[in-house]
Amino acid sequence: MANWQSLVHEQVQKEREAATALLQEWVRHPSVSGAEYSIQESIAKRLASMGLDVDLWVMGGEELIKHPYFVSPRQQFEGSPNVVGVWKGTGGGRSIILNGHVDVVPAGDEAQWEQPPFSGEVLDGKLYGRGATDMKGGNLSSLLAIQVLQALGVKLKGDVIFQSVVEEESGGAGTLSTILRGYKADAALIPEPTNMKIFPKQQGSMWFRLLVKGRSAHGGTRYEGVSAIEKSLLVVQAIGQLEKVRNDRMTDPLYAKLPIPIPINIGVIEGGKWPSSVADLVKLEGRMGVAPGEQMEDAKAEMQAALSALAQIDPWFAEHPVELEWYGARWVPGAVEEDHPLMEILHNQFVAITGERAVVEASPWGTDGGLLTALADTPAIVVGPGVTQVAHYPNEYIELDDVFRCAEIFALTLIEWCGVSES
Amino acid sequence: MANWQSLVHEQVQKEREAATALLQEWVRHPSVSGAEYSIQESIAKRLASMGLDVDLWVMGGEELIKHPYFVSPRQQFEGSPNVVGVWKGTGGGRSIILNGHVDVVPAGDEAQWEQPPFSGEVLDGKLYGRGATDMKGGNLSSLLAIQVLQALGVKLKGDVIFQSVVEEESGGAGTLSTILRGYKADAALIPEPTNMKIFPKQQGSMWFRLLVKGRSAHGGTRYEGVSAIEKSLLVVQAIGQLEKVRNDRMTDPLYAKLPIPIPINIGVIEGGKWPSSVADLVKLEGRMGVAPGEQMEDAKAEMQAALSALAQIDPWFAEHPVELEWYGARWVPGAVEEDHPLMEILHNQFVAITGERAVVEASPWGTDGGLLTALADTPAIVVGPGVTQVAHYPNEYIELDDVFRCAEIFALTLIEWCGVSES
Repeated sequence: MANWQSLVHEQVQKEREAATALLQEWVRHPSVSGAEYSIQESIAKRLASMGLDVDLWVMGGEELIKHPYFVSPRQQFEGSPNVVGVWKGTGGGRSIILNGHVDVVPAGDEAQWEQPPFSGEVLDGKLYGRGATDMKGGNLSSLLAIQVLQALGVKLKGDVIFQSVVEEESGGAGTLSTILRGYKADAALIPEPTNMKIFPKQQGSMWFRLLVKGRSAHGGTRYEGVSAIEKSLLVVQAIGQLEKVRNDRMTDPLYAKLPIPIPINIGVIEGGKWPSSVADLVKLEGRMGVAPGEQMEDAKAEMQAALSALAQIDPWFAEHPVELEWYGARWVPGAVEEDHPLMEILHNQFVAITGERAVVEASPWGTDGGLLTALADTPAIVVGPGVTQVAHYPNEYIELDDVFRCAEIFALTLIEWCGVSES
Repeated sequence: MANWQSLVHEQVQKEREAATALLQEWVRHPSVSGAEYSIQESIAKRLASMGLDVDLWVMGGEELIKHPYFVSPRQQFEGSPNVVGVWKGTGGGRSIILNGHVDVVPAGDEAQWEQPPFSGEVLDGKLYGRGATDMKGGNLSSLLAIQVLQALGVKLKGDVIFQSVVEEESGGAGTLSTILRGYKADAALIPEPTNMKIFPKQQGSMWFRLLVKGRSAHGGTRYEGVSAIEKSLLVVQAIGQLEKVRNDRMTDPLYAKLPIPIPINIGVIEGGKWPSSVADLVKLEGRMGVAPGEQMEDAKAEMQAALSALAQIDPWFAEHPVELEWYGARWVPGAVEEDHPLMEILHNQFVAITGERAVVEASPWGTDGGLLTALADTPAIVVGPGVTQVAHYPNEYIELDDVFRCAEIFALTLIEWCGVSES
């Protein structure tokens, strides 16, 4: 082990400059949804040059679009290919997926950026740009792990499947397509920005829309109507109560530090059209957290039950039930047991490289790991460089030291997990 | 008296057909805000042909626009003249204003109308069309009262000032302009649709906008933010409490039948942009009722105090006070004492014509009477044909019998109030 550790470390140092340039190139592709072609083509070429079996495809078709886990604002994916590169093992070892997405959220207001949003500029050891932390930096850690092992002449027994996917930010259609294409493995690592914490469990989430009804009247005789705004207060309170009940059940110590492990957030409220009229309709839109191990359908049923119970608080709701619609984005929760063998390997490498024991937590957000666990029998662990606090914000950046430290941990983890062929 | 009563009744019956045709003509002018020219020109010609001193003008100028009671979405009134016709008395009698507006609210969705919205069609004694009830029917009662007295050769001692104004639906700039032009009288009648009830008091109202602040965060870690939606629940509750306190003070028996004499209606709520984000701003828009005799400024101060008191309930509001803006429409409340001599006269004529005592109530909405009372020393009583329930709705109509009954009451009231010259 000690030997591999110092060999890997030295090799990563040698690759540092070229790898930083590569991450800069990746960040300079403004790969927002629908515009991922150029970065994916570049990654495919690189994987091919490394001798991996490369698969680049534009997803689509009924099997995908009609799949119960398919979520996307679009159904056409020209300009947004997926790329998978397989580094075939010699056989007899455990396989692993290194999954990461290349789609980034929009830059937002450019005036709030100190550098242009897709600059890739490096300052004080930080590489700046939209997607640097979420999650091109993590993807580089994965790729570099493979490059370093190849440079050291390592031959792994198990397959390493490098996945560069699209559509994670919209709900995971890219990873769903890899699964439908047949990709699976004995485990997966997803280097989303966890600030190098290990997340064996990831919260899922799904969006809902509620329509709360009232009856219109003139504001001067508002008692002749029924205010949908007043009724929506009761709905918001009922959702708050549901959130409390659901979170009181969350006894998992991984969630001990979170004030609300699986929040229900009502993010949008909109109702009424005229100050002097009683509002007859209010729309609420929100996001419901789903616990690791919980079935999405069970969470949906619990929401519906909470809304139906409103009829007992206020007979208005018996005659005018709140309409519930599940729409838009959805991320499946994921969970790996803490005694999973990949957890122990990761822990050991983490201590070896950083000198400290990794922090283990549960993520407050979903990743594509939920799909891999639920549909591909592939336990997924989320750990990566980058910090959530800068993801989706102006002046997003990543600490380059963390990218390389993570690459070292991944390289050593691949050796342990997949096994090294002596032949 | 008995003599006048039967003479007036017979003359109204003679005028019925022509008067119905005139009301049809008025309703066929689609005199929504900005499009009142043709009806006002027609009315001015008629008043001139009746021998009244006619004044037609397009209002404007600094005195109007900068007046503290000026409220309008526009500052230019081309196409929207006011018309006043004065029937000069012989002297020594009390003067009276007959005030009514010709602006109508938009027709709305034409598909919901059984006849075209400006048809003026008569079916089963009802005349249909936008503005029939609010308030061209009432205006016809006023005009017909003058015509009938003239036909009977009556010469009144006091002046009768017939006012056909614009902009009532937007807050009363038309009547404000008549006041600034110097028109005033010893009393005023306003035949808004009261279903022939007498409203000596009219509720005022004004629009407000509240901005409730929060702090944004990701929905999955919503405890890191502050939801403006949750905070707005507290604001809505505080407004509800304020409404209760204000209405508990309303001991006037005229309001005894109203569940909430001076309602505060929150008609619009809007906040947040994304289901997965914590909303950082919620806008509330509403309409505050103002009691007859209450100063608008006092009501405003009471609202501000209620919002400021939120800081004691939740320290968030101390750091992030709710912003209060008074905007858009405003109607000044009005009040005439119940023992005002015009009240007794009206009551007597009402009994004479209908055989029953009039119902006296306070209106749940404002009229231009508030301005006449507050700024022109002209006590205003609101009484007219037409029913509030159909005003502003599709298939608006007026019962023609009520229009003619009201004309008789008005004609007899003018005789009693202004006095008849024997010379």
